[in-house]
Amino acid sequence: MATDPALRQDTARQWFQSLRDRICAAFEQLEDDLSGPALKAVGDAPAGRFERTPWTRDAAGGAGEGGGGVMAVMRGRVFEKVGVNVSTVEGRFTPEFAAQFPGAQEDPRFWASGISLVAHLHSPLAPAVHMNTRHIVTAKSWFGGGADITPMFPESDHARADAARFHAALEAACDGADPAYYEKYKAWCDSYFYLPHRNERRGLGGIFYDDLDSGDWDADFAFTKAVGEAFLGCYPPLVAGRMNAAWTEAERRQQLIRRGRYVEFNLLYDRGTQFGLKTGGNTEAILMSLPPQAIWP
Amino acid sequence: MATDPALRQDTARQWFQSLRDRICAAFEQLEDDLSGPALKAVGDAPAGRFERTPWTRDAAGGAGEGGGGVMAVMRGRVFEKVGVNVSTVEGRFTPEFAAQFPGAQEDPRFWASGISLVAHLHSPLAPAVHMNTRHIVTAKSWFGGGADITPMFPESDHARADAARFHAALEAACDGADPAYYEKYKAWCDSYFYLPHRNERRGLGGIFYDDLDSGDWDADFAFTKAVGEAFLGCYPPLVAGRMNAAWTEAERRQQLIRRGRYVEFNLLYDRGTQFGLKTGGNTEAILMSLPPQAIWP
Repeated sequence: MATDPALRQDTARQWFQSLRDRICAAFEQLEDDLSGPALKAVGDAPAGRFERTPWTRDAAGGAGEGGGGVMAVMRGRVFEKVGVNVSTVEGRFTPEFAAQFPGAQEDPRFWASGISLVAHLHSPLAPAVHMNTRHIVTAKSWFGGGADITPMFPESDHARADAARFHAALEAACDGADPAYYEKYKAWCDSYFYLPHRNERRGLGGIFYDDLDSGDWDADFAFTKAVGEAFLGCYPPLVAGRMNAAWTEAERRQQLIRRGRYVEFNLLYDRGTQFGLKTGGNTEAILMSLPPQAIWP
Repeated sequence: MATDPALRQDTARQWFQSLRDRICAAFEQLEDDLSGPALKAVGDAPAGRFERTPWTRDAAGGAGEGGGGVMAVMRGRVFEKVGVNVSTVEGRFTPEFAAQFPGAQEDPRFWASGISLVAHLHSPLAPAVHMNTRHIVTAKSWFGGGADITPMFPESDHARADAARFHAALEAACDGADPAYYEKYKAWCDSYFYLPHRNERRGLGGIFYDDLDSGDWDADFAFTKAVGEAFLGCYPPLVAGRMNAAWTEAERRQQLIRRGRYVEFNLLYDRGTQFGLKTGGNTEAILMSLPPQAIWP
């Protein structure tokens, strides 16, 4: 039950790193476990391993600017490309951004720490996924994050089954914190991961929350941890259940088209991407979310 | 020397269509002329032909809303994907957009006609290209447009030679109108087609102009026509000079990476894309600029 602000921030930062470590280990285990037709489809490639690259934020001037993170990337045989970034940065919002963040009008200083993950898989039968949790401190302090799943064939029975399991895990995490959270954060996710110019959802949803400050820091942090643990508990088994099956060229082509939509969402609408690129974030880390390959036929 | 506004608008609209017809014919001729190693590289595919698809703008309510255009697309053996769109639309700016357009604060009605072209080629040795000219009428009236070239190996001698010829043609078009135009519009192009998050130019430039209303409509239209004619005169021969040569897998890979940057620019920064998508434009026509394939390795 941390009450000192600096201690709280450090606790959150360490947890984001611990979650990263456990997710990377689980994903590397999937790399080891690949077998069957899919292993032949990727030419008996060796099991992938994450490569970690630390980076430092350019101190754009002023006291307390800076921080950095670690970009962990794996280009494997199950995961065509997966990035797991943790970062802890601090600085001052420009007036343009201060208007958008609680507490930043009073004092432009901010501290932010979080984990962000996007996975694009070789198999078109396995869902792509995004997960992010973060803690931000200005004159106020809050948590945000969520996780959402993007099957390549969202109408298919297998995708619907995967999405149901994914939602069930997130719902349980929500219910442990507040019975109202799941419906609210599910709806938020659906409205956020939407491409108006296509009149399409990005995928089959999940949960999305932001500005969470219930007044009980420990409870909000516990909920954020539960979201991360739910992701870790449910997504690797979903992949394990799909990754070994054979796929067709037509399925691969459909996957590459869906990935084009993923690019469109991230560059046109994603607030994290826009925010990161405009505040001097690490471009490689931010754009790690883009798929390894996409088509616009 | 048209002075009646409606007649002027019709004259401009017809010229955009005429330019489209001649560009499409020139590009189809290149398809016919492909030979040598490149023809083998594309598996002796047949010469491509443009397919034209008319579309109508949704009348979102209000008198005079509407218009539409024709999307011409070719997926050929020289041109992996090229889109040439002409459109003529009219409507009313929302307050958000009215603030950005000359004359629109007085009266939100607008009329706009233009041609827009983006070409992505099979050969990594031939430059991608973009060309657009347009005439917009609000309470004011102006022309805008330009053309810019994106070689896949911008540092190479062959790319620099192509860019020099491309710039020379545009410079001549500028000089016929005003000796100050080329330097001004070249600089505008360089600052516009720039990716700040990469600290990279999109390509090797060209010219970009907007809000052109010198007070002499005929002169401004003549300049706009000269830009279009310069493009038609110089780009097809550039392609003809590069398209038949063999390329390597490494060159193709570099091309796909450069195309990823092209996607980033168009979705993150291009004003035409943002404007089109947010004003209910035709999504397929607007995103025709995206490359057929791109990678973010």
